[in-house]
Amino acid sequence: MAEAKDMGGAAVGQTLPFLDAPEKAAGAALYLDDLRLPGMLTGRALRSAHAHARIVSVDAREARQVPGVAAVLTGADLPDGPRMIPHRRGAPLVARDRVRYMGDVVALVAAETEGAAEAALERIRVEYEPLPVAQDPREAMAAQAPRLWPEGNLLNHAKIRNGDVEEGFRRADVVVENEYQTPSGEHLYLEVESAAVAPLPGGGCQIWGCTQQPFLVRQNAARALGLKGETAVRFVQTIPGGAFGGKSEASLDVCLRAALLARAAQRPVKLVYSREESMIASSKRHAAFIRSRTGAARDGRIVAAEVEVYLDKGAYAANGGDNPPAFKRATYHALGPYQIPNVKVDVYCVHTNHPYGGQMRGPGCPQVHFACEQQMDELARALQIDPIELRRINGLKVGARTPWNQRLPESVGLLETLAKAEEASGWSGRRGGGRRAPDGRLRGVGVASCLYGTGNAYSPAEAHIFLTAEGRIQVAAGVVDFGQGSKTVLCQIAAETMDVPYGSFLMGAVDTAVDPFGGTSSSSRITMQGGKAVFQAALRARQEVLRLAGLLLEADPGDLELRGGLVRSRSHAETRVTLAELAKAYVADEHKLLGAADNIPPPAKTDHETGQGEPYEVYGFGTQVAEVLVDAETGEIEVTGVWAAHDVGRAISPLGVQQQIDGGVYMGVGFCLMEEVVQRGGRMLNPDMHGYLAPTVVDMPPVEGHIVEDPYSNGPYGAKGVGEQVTVPTAAAIANA
Amino acid sequence: MAEAKDMGGAAVGQTLPFLDAPEKAAGAALYLDDLRLPGMLTGRALRSAHAHARIVSVDAREARQVPGVAAVLTGADLPDGPRMIPHRRGAPLVARDRVRYMGDVVALVAAETEGAAEAALERIRVEYEPLPVAQDPREAMAAQAPRLWPEGNLLNHAKIRNGDVEEGFRRADVVVENEYQTPSGEHLYLEVESAAVAPLPGGGCQIWGCTQQPFLVRQNAARALGLKGETAVRFVQTIPGGAFGGKSEASLDVCLRAALLARAAQRPVKLVYSREESMIASSKRHAAFIRSRTGAARDGRIVAAEVEVYLDKGAYAANGGDNPPAFKRATYHALGPYQIPNVKVDVYCVHTNHPYGGQMRGPGCPQVHFACEQQMDELARALQIDPIELRRINGLKVGARTPWNQRLPESVGLLETLAKAEEASGWSGRRGGGRRAPDGRLRGVGVASCLYGTGNAYSPAEAHIFLTAEGRIQVAAGVVDFGQGSKTVLCQIAAETMDVPYGSFLMGAVDTAVDPFGGTSSSSRITMQGGKAVFQAALRARQEVLRLAGLLLEADPGDLELRGGLVRSRSHAETRVTLAELAKAYVADEHKLLGAADNIPPPAKTDHETGQGEPYEVYGFGTQVAEVLVDAETGEIEVTGVWAAHDVGRAISPLGVQQQIDGGVYMGVGFCLMEEVVQRGGRMLNPDMHGYLAPTVVDMPPVEGHIVEDPYSNGPYGAKGVGEQVTVPTAAAIANA
Repeated sequence: MAEAKDMGGAAVGQTLPFLDAPEKAAGAALYLDDLRLPGMLTGRALRSAHAHARIVSVDAREARQVPGVAAVLTGADLPDGPRMIPHRRGAPLVARDRVRYMGDVVALVAAETEGAAEAALERIRVEYEPLPVAQDPREAMAAQAPRLWPEGNLLNHAKIRNGDVEEGFRRADVVVENEYQTPSGEHLYLEVESAAVAPLPGGGCQIWGCTQQPFLVRQNAARALGLKGETAVRFVQTIPGGAFGGKSEASLDVCLRAALLARAAQRPVKLVYSREESMIASSKRHAAFIRSRTGAARDGRIVAAEVEVYLDKGAYAANGGDNPPAFKRATYHALGPYQIPNVKVDVYCVHTNHPYGGQMRGPGCPQVHFACEQQMDELARALQIDPIELRRINGLKVGARTPWNQRLPESVGLLETLAKAEEASGWSGRRGGGRRAPDGRLRGVGVASCLYGTGNAYSPAEAHIFLTAEGRIQVAAGVVDFGQGSKTVLCQIAAETMDVPYGSFLMGAVDTAVDPFGGTSSSSRITMQGGKAVFQAALRARQEVLRLAGLLLEADPGDLELRGGLVRSRSHAETRVTLAELAKAYVADEHKLLGAADNIPPPAKTDHETGQGEPYEVYGFGTQVAEVLVDAETGEIEVTGVWAAHDVGRAISPLGVQQQIDGGVYMGVGFCLMEEVVQRGGRMLNPDMHGYLAPTVVDMPPVEGHIVEDPYSNGPYGAKGVGEQVTVPTAAAIANA
Repeated sequence: MAEAKDMGGAAVGQTLPFLDAPEKAAGAALYLDDLRLPGMLTGRALRSAHAHARIVSVDAREARQVPGVAAVLTGADLPDGPRMIPHRRGAPLVARDRVRYMGDVVALVAAETEGAAEAALERIRVEYEPLPVAQDPREAMAAQAPRLWPEGNLLNHAKIRNGDVEEGFRRADVVVENEYQTPSGEHLYLEVESAAVAPLPGGGCQIWGCTQQPFLVRQNAARALGLKGETAVRFVQTIPGGAFGGKSEASLDVCLRAALLARAAQRPVKLVYSREESMIASSKRHAAFIRSRTGAARDGRIVAAEVEVYLDKGAYAANGGDNPPAFKRATYHALGPYQIPNVKVDVYCVHTNHPYGGQMRGPGCPQVHFACEQQMDELARALQIDPIELRRINGLKVGARTPWNQRLPESVGLLETLAKAEEASGWSGRRGGGRRAPDGRLRGVGVASCLYGTGNAYSPAEAHIFLTAEGRIQVAAGVVDFGQGSKTVLCQIAAETMDVPYGSFLMGAVDTAVDPFGGTSSSSRITMQGGKAVFQAALRARQEVLRLAGLLLEADPGDLELRGGLVRSRSHAETRVTLAELAKAYVADEHKLLGAADNIPPPAKTDHETGQGEPYEVYGFGTQVAEVLVDAETGEIEVTGVWAAHDVGRAISPLGVQQQIDGGVYMGVGFCLMEEVVQRGGRMLNPDMHGYLAPTVVDMPPVEGHIVEDPYSNGPYGAKGVGEQVTVPTAAAIANA
């Protein structure tokens, strides 16, 4: 109990061991590939041979004769409904008449062995009639461009209009105008898309897999299987081997395809994509083409900005159809964290015959910040103002209005991140130092800031808190911890709120049959949006513990208090009961619900024509300083240091925030210097880990993270979020350096 | 909406259609036997050849060679843990060294076909060394009797002591003393014990089956499989084909045996007992031997009663070990619903080599009431007092103390049931009528009353109420509706409390992965104990609906009211929102929890030596009058009418209560006149539906049910329970007639 007294009620802001660290460190964590279901078959998919083609015929007769083959599914074997991925508009699970990118699947096979599945795939004859390929989103908007869809290739066009942008530019003393281009990116999660499915009586199934959206998988699987009611499908999360936003969407098709095969074979099926399939087929960071024009007065105040963004959406309307997160975020982050009176932003999301664009850590934001923050440095140079000073002059402050006319009443820590990054990096000293390192390489220092709309507007979360039979507290929030530490943070919030030691907490993998709806594990929303639900549930759970203790002790609950996991009477010091004793008395079975609550964030209120309004309820802010050494002869760039300061509202787990900063910076380094999905004619040229260069441990710069806490009154203990903003400014800081 | 307005808030006390009537009437209800799992094997059990024997050897080598056999399990194949049924002390899933009744299983087989399973069973050689058989519980207590257990055959001995019974008899003017004997009984549910089990990764499994205790099956299966944590097992209830108390316990072994086979074969297994197996192996109504001595003063007041009961427990300590419900109930119901100052009750629960005694509609009570109520008539005759009048003189009333010294502060409707049964049957007219019917048969009229401890002491229940995506209200209470209408009654309580039309309600089959713990569906406890949890949850759900409506309407929830399923503003008549609209706005997925609550009844407080205290929180009461015609030559008895009045506190569903009365009386007729499990030397002589005579539709008397409502302040809308008391007095009434 000593331990409990020391830890209870002091969980938030403490660095506590990650909840899932022991099982991962011990190698006991079970990943999907470890799963063996009785009688399980191996699934395989036949991918398209073309980026764009009409399917003339598919002949699978020979494949069906291969010994050990239990099921072969072509487009002709499936009615229209089950052929499609509900959440990915237009995308087939098995294509029938048309393929629109090389990740499209034209046939599925389930067989006793991998060899038999492979042999069956080789015997499927597909006749294609190739079609011209759309590759560049700007060109794909033209009337004469190869069309993916009858209504044209433009998926959506978003705007921000405020003030008078032309008048603003007329009044500007300095105008800089540039074009930027950022490449398509690959998540390269260690664990490729994988699923195992067991058919259940009545047409339902149980799916094991790795996703950021368990309830979405359940819903989509139920629809694809034509089931009435989603609960006929049960989704059970296995330990995720990386996600980074990609498993918001890419996990859907592998689960649904495995489910179709399992139903056809009436046997369990495991489907694991190869690394090449994963890279060719999965969602990508949208390649972006950006035109920026920024005007400022001589005193540094930005008076006008105009941004035009073309996002390569690839073949399908993934991640929510017309208004996917990357598109919305590219729009509202294109102007950076600044006050600008006259603005015009146009973002075009355009279909091509590339892999579909999806969510990748801060979807849309690293791209538009790359442009915006280089514009800032160009302005600084033209105005001869220190780049940090220029950002300070224009930066959003409490009480300011964003360019889309959203008032920011609180929690705007940008200026503090500027000050912290400036001080920590020794900015002026480094800037004033020599232009060359002792070894002759050129030295450069750069800075970039960012804002990040935390969470999603109207993305509700629910949380349930249970007392287990052993007297531990179990949190269920229906959200996936893919390594970022969500479970840890949510349990810290519950521990602090209930005043029960963190060590008493448990949180399992998401199971849709058991867990409440938690929404997506993306948009840096779990701590803030899930955490608020957990906080409310924990308040109720605390009351319920006192009620039960009152029953057991035959005492007035009002005279009882819960501290350090122990219930005591205020008036009789010796009257006390532990959670284990309460559990023994009142947990009739596995566990008992103590409290449930939801968090319903306000809906986004934005005007369709002007973009003005409130797209996000609150924003995170950050500033990063990078120092680089460049070999002028070889062009080789070494990042020698990154100083990153981020306003997260409140760091529930300081260690977790630091880890996010490290990881975010590494990902930003890769985005800036190395990573590029290379495509020609719709064919990916580097679909493997040799061809696609990502930073390894030797490429990692030293990272110094600094946490700025400007609490958000509507976040749990003031917390906003951290997971994505930390990667947003890195590339621009390096480029500026 | 008109329909909603008419029905909402007026659900309790209404006769509404049974919730599951449509699917049952349409033949769409799926019973276990309808279930087909992919790759499913057929299981079979080899039963003991002796009622009591040492197992010398089991040779299953030949059986394992039979083509199509996937698994053979003998006692030697299983470690100690998994061999036992945790809840049935001493009972093996597969016996190894000893068999104690003919229902014991010595081997299990799973095979591709029934033929293969049968062939394998025939090839298992078991060598036994027979042991002497204990048959009569009175004899089995003797030191020299054949012993089932080293510690002897007496499982438990319960006592009630109050006053001075010998002094009471000394003061009595009339004493009657008799011995009674009631036979062992069979539930004869239409659906025999059946289960299907699919193995899951990690050693867990999913069980489909029919039980009255889903969470107990889960817990027992997890223990038998040696799993850590119960949630590795999921139990899903199929539509029950009858239960009557028998599926409290008998469902355990079939589920656990199927689970062992499924794990051994790593394939799904279905195990369905034959009718003969079911009758030989399943729990029985305890045969009872009763000695009763009752003394009364000349004015009719009973002054002393002494009862000695011997219950045939059969081979194993089923249904809760030392203090099973039938044993406790036999003790506290042995004296009937009367005030008696001096009492001595002894109940002995004794092992024999018969099928284990279990719960059967009012466990222990029809037996002891059969004796007690015949004693009353003997007293009435001796005292020349009308039998109804004698019961009225001695009957429990509000404020009275029971013989075990429990004060009854409210809801004691016995006298009203006496009055109602007297009036409805035309008692004095019938009694005064001729002794012969026109056809010459002898006519008799008899009466019997009863009390019935409603529910179990400390048997908690939880309930969750959800809003579904379609805007319906879903109730989850973790309790099985085996035809008695629990779902209907619980939804009526929720509908009344929330003021939402009954037609909006849904309640699924129990699924342990989804449902909260509801406890056992027995002891007539669901309406009262589950209903209280539902009532509390519905109060919260109503508040939650108003909160959500407030969010959507941007209104103060305090200004909103929920009526007839529609939320309206008190101040703005036109401001309103339907549940479907709320669901569209706030149910992100399948459903959303609106409210959860529990009901924790007080623990039983009884003294071990005197039995005094509070064994049950409240009691139901009933009186039945029966008229019979007896052919003096053949002895054939026809029951020509039963008038049954029962105090249920409050009839939530009057139709449901009437159906319970009908069914209870029919079962009482069978108990009295026809049904008897005949056993010789531990062998059942009539293990089939030809040999075991149960009433058919032609044997059913006309039944006139009368509902007496003496509300219980701590029951939902005053309700107590009805399911079991209705069968308790029937046999005695017929015997008295």
